[in-house]
Amino acid sequence: MPTFTLADLAASLKGELSGDPELLISGTAEIDKAKEGQITFLANPKYKPYLESTGATAVIIDDKAGDLSGIPAIKVSDAYFGFLQVFMMFYTPKKMLDDGIHPTAVIHESAEVGDGSAIGANVYIGANVKIGKGCQIFPNCVVLDDTTIGSDCKFYPSVNIREVCTIGDRVILHNGVVVGSDGFGFAPYQGKFHKIPQVGTVIIEDDVEIGANTTIDRATMGETRIKSGVKLDNLIHIAHNVVVGDDTVIAAQTGVSGSTTIGKHAMIGGQVGMVGHIHIGDRVQIAAQSGVVKNVPEGEVLFGSPARPIMVNKRIEAATKNLPDLLKRVRAIEKKLDELTQEGFDGR
Amino acid sequence: MPTFTLADLAASLKGELSGDPELLISGTAEIDKAKEGQITFLANPKYKPYLESTGATAVIIDDKAGDLSGIPAIKVSDAYFGFLQVFMMFYTPKKMLDDGIHPTAVIHESAEVGDGSAIGANVYIGANVKIGKGCQIFPNCVVLDDTTIGSDCKFYPSVNIREVCTIGDRVILHNGVVVGSDGFGFAPYQGKFHKIPQVGTVIIEDDVEIGANTTIDRATMGETRIKSGVKLDNLIHIAHNVVVGDDTVIAAQTGVSGSTTIGKHAMIGGQVGMVGHIHIGDRVQIAAQSGVVKNVPEGEVLFGSPARPIMVNKRIEAATKNLPDLLKRVRAIEKKLDELTQEGFDGR
Amino acid sequence: MPTFTLADLAASLKGELSGDPELLISGTAEIDKAKEGQITFLANPKYKPYLESTGATAVIIDDKAGDLSGIPAIKVSDAYFGFLQVFMMFYTPKKMLDDGIHPTAVIHESAEVGDGSAIGANVYIGANVKIGKGCQIFPNCVVLDDTTIGSDCKFYPSVNIREVCTIGDRVILHNGVVVGSDGFGFAPYQGKFHKIPQVGTVIIEDDVEIGANTTIDRATMGETRIKSGVKLDNLIHIAHNVVVGDDTVIAAQTGVSGSTTIGKHAMIGGQVGMVGHIHIGDRVQIAAQSGVVKNVPEGEVLFGSPARPIMVNKRIEAATKNLPDLLKRVRAIEKKLDELTQEGFDGR
Repeated sequence: MPTFTLADLAASLKGELSGDPELLISGTAEIDKAKEGQITFLANPKYKPYLESTGATAVIIDDKAGDLSGIPAIKVSDAYFGFLQVFMMFYTPKKMLDDGIHPTAVIHESAEVGDGSAIGANVYIGANVKIGKGCQIFPNCVVLDDTTIGSDCKFYPSVNIREVCTIGDRVILHNGVVVGSDGFGFAPYQGKFHKIPQVGTVIIEDDVEIGANTTIDRATMGETRIKSGVKLDNLIHIAHNVVVGDDTVIAAQTGVSGSTTIGKHAMIGGQVGMVGHIHIGDRVQIAAQSGVVKNVPEGEVLFGSPARPIMVNKRIEAATKNLPDLLKRVRAIEKKLDELTQEGFDGR
Repeated sequence: MPTFTLADLAASLKGELSGDPELLISGTAEIDKAKEGQITFLANPKYKPYLESTGATAVIIDDKAGDLSGIPAIKVSDAYFGFLQVFMMFYTPKKMLDDGIHPTAVIHESAEVGDGSAIGANVYIGANVKIGKGCQIFPNCVVLDDTTIGSDCKFYPSVNIREVCTIGDRVILHNGVVVGSDGFGFAPYQGKFHKIPQVGTVIIEDDVEIGANTTIDRATMGETRIKSGVKLDNLIHIAHNVVVGDDTVIAAQTGVSGSTTIGKHAMIGGQVGMVGHIHIGDRVQIAAQSGVVKNVPEGEVLFGSPARPIMVNKRIEAATKNLPDLLKRVRAIEKKLDELTQEGFDGR
Repeated sequence: MPTFTLADLAASLKGELSGDPELLISGTAEIDKAKEGQITFLANPKYKPYLESTGATAVIIDDKAGDLSGIPAIKVSDAYFGFLQVFMMFYTPKKMLDDGIHPTAVIHESAEVGDGSAIGANVYIGANVKIGKGCQIFPNCVVLDDTTIGSDCKFYPSVNIREVCTIGDRVILHNGVVVGSDGFGFAPYQGKFHKIPQVGTVIIEDDVEIGANTTIDRATMGETRIKSGVKLDNLIHIAHNVVVGDDTVIAAQTGVSGSTTIGKHAMIGGQVGMVGHIHIGDRVQIAAQSGVVKNVPEGEVLFGSPARPIMVNKRIEAATKNLPDLLKRVRAIEKKLDELTQEGFDGR
């Protein structure tokens, strides 16, 4: 573990320091667990009482936080993010791959592997593949012909990339991810389904992370594109010709059907389904298990199957909960009307 | 790219030619993008205006289409399917596997590999496996003992086939597909679940295609069977002893529980769930995210969870949307009755 | 196939024998298919008529079953479980892995492999991994550094275990299972999602079985834990820091969000979703496709999305089915009130 002065850390965070700048910090911990020599953070006001009792040597707090009872501190615009940055200064992930190419890896003679990239055991790299600098390709990954991979990517074991795909820089793919499998396209003719060759590709832009066993189909023609900064969880299905916009996050087991496009900064829950050929606007939020069947305007917050604006569906759901009661009330009304009219009223 | 005369193409399609039979065609394109030397198609009448402006040398059209303003044409019963056939005449997928068996593949001495089959790097083939002619088994696939594979199959990287399964001819399995994993069968006894050995098998018939990371469990006893021409999308779960009938298609992330049987020519949407031990009739259609809990007669169109005939559930859904309004109306009725009766009417 | 006397079998089952103890039994079969020399079972009373006609030499029946028309029998407390035990005495799964370590496996010099463990082709075992006795690690599995695996485990092909995980004894992992992939944790800051290193681990306790292509994420800090005897089906997503209690079973395609804890002996259907940070009590049962959004008390039986106690949601669902009818009735009431009051009643 490295050690930093509080001044070092404040400088890294471009934060405002209060307290002795020469204090030595050698680690991070949560506010209720921190000990001498560690730095902690206070983001949620409900943890403020811990400031009195924490064993931490210093604390990272929000600019807007008030008086701190004298504990050494670094003020930043977002205390949690500041803490994450400091955490990363102390964090050195264990090296699990030897430098260079493992002797059991099978790499086509026409493939190029950049400086500092490590290729693990039993990896297969096809013809004309280009891999940038500083990548880690873990054991048993497969990359087929003519695919291009940027720099500083990390592919965990058993990642599969099909041919002619493009992967950007700093992309993290977890175990079992499949990129570039054929789109689900068939022409029905006389009761049989005839395969439509899927001659398009997949483009994964920079800083994307994709969870275990998620599958991204290649386009029928053209491209399937996962834009910069997107984070996909496990077991997600992305169909052919889908576009996922910058910095959108999608939780596990969601499925996006063919040719649907999703804007930027959207947040999509788990087990959501979207039909094909629709557009989900920027900054849309969709609750878990929703089923989206039409275009969604920018900024909308959706819920339910079929998905509707959250206030509409919450109101419907509340009413649904009262349905058995409503039935009883209508029966009572009918009975009363029957009495009033003396003529055997029956609404059915 | 090969070149054909218009007469060649018309003969291949068994279509009716109009225009110069000696015109040379060297490729295909969509009607709004086609250039000289290319052939296009017109299936959807709304694209008819493009006929005037298309750069295509010829067009494939439906029999029933009317006057064509003189552009050279081939008339067939299904223009889109005809176009697909011509597309395939020009399409030669790049060869990505060397002939024969890669030196790093591990193939049991008792296994048989047919003529013209290519086995990629790091593949494992167990004892007594039989592989037919012309198959492509991509890197890192695993086929365990006593499994039989037909001819002209294509297994993309990391496909897994367990022991004693049977795969037909021209079967395409995408990356990460698992065939023959144990069914989920346990006998509860005194609070513990005791494994029931899954001694059945899986049979995949001819011309089946299965999407990435889909799993097909073996039968407890007997067989799980995916019949001829079935197309399964990605991340589907097929449980033990399920039967999927000829030419049925199932979209991504659907799950079929144990011993359920599905007829022929059914079309099943994504994220559908089916309970076990039911039968889905021939030509049934099931909308995405439906939950099917009982037998479905032939030809039914279902929707919803629980799934009901689509007209029934559409009507219920429309009524549900009006529920908050209905609640208000019932409240107004109660108030009016209260006034009318002067006796404090309360239906609750 | 071995042969046992009826007395041998009765002794193994600690059951009460009636009939000739020297009868020879050489196999098992279902009651309507059994032949001479085989033993069958009768658990479901509706099969009792088959006792007259079965070809079986003997039958395993429940203690509480009455007269058996003289067929030789073993009475036990649970006839089905007794039959499973006898089935296992006749069942010897075919050996598919050679003893020892396959020459193509890549095993770090610091790894330890226990006596009688078999390691298949193209397996990768990282530094400091410890594997107990009698394990079967099938081809193309990957186990990264510092993971510990108990004894008598069976990992089918292409199982992936990340670093620093702990696997107990007799754990069965099916093809494509991923254990220890990163949790889905990001800190949003200025419109970007910044990765939170996932420095926790996964602990899989004894006698757990996990279905094909299921993914179990490692904890952000601390541990994700799958407790003793848990059975997970295929394509399940278990997020970071989840705990699944002893002997709980979960059906295919269910997703459990981060930090949710599930008690013991729970039974959870397929395609269920659970939000994060809730607790599901012991012995809870949740129907397929439910969406669980809050804590569930011990023993509750849930259904629906959002999930509610099954009787509540069944009543709501029944009422929902009658909604179009209810709408008509309310319209009729409004019309009648309009007539009665002569003043144009309109509840809307």
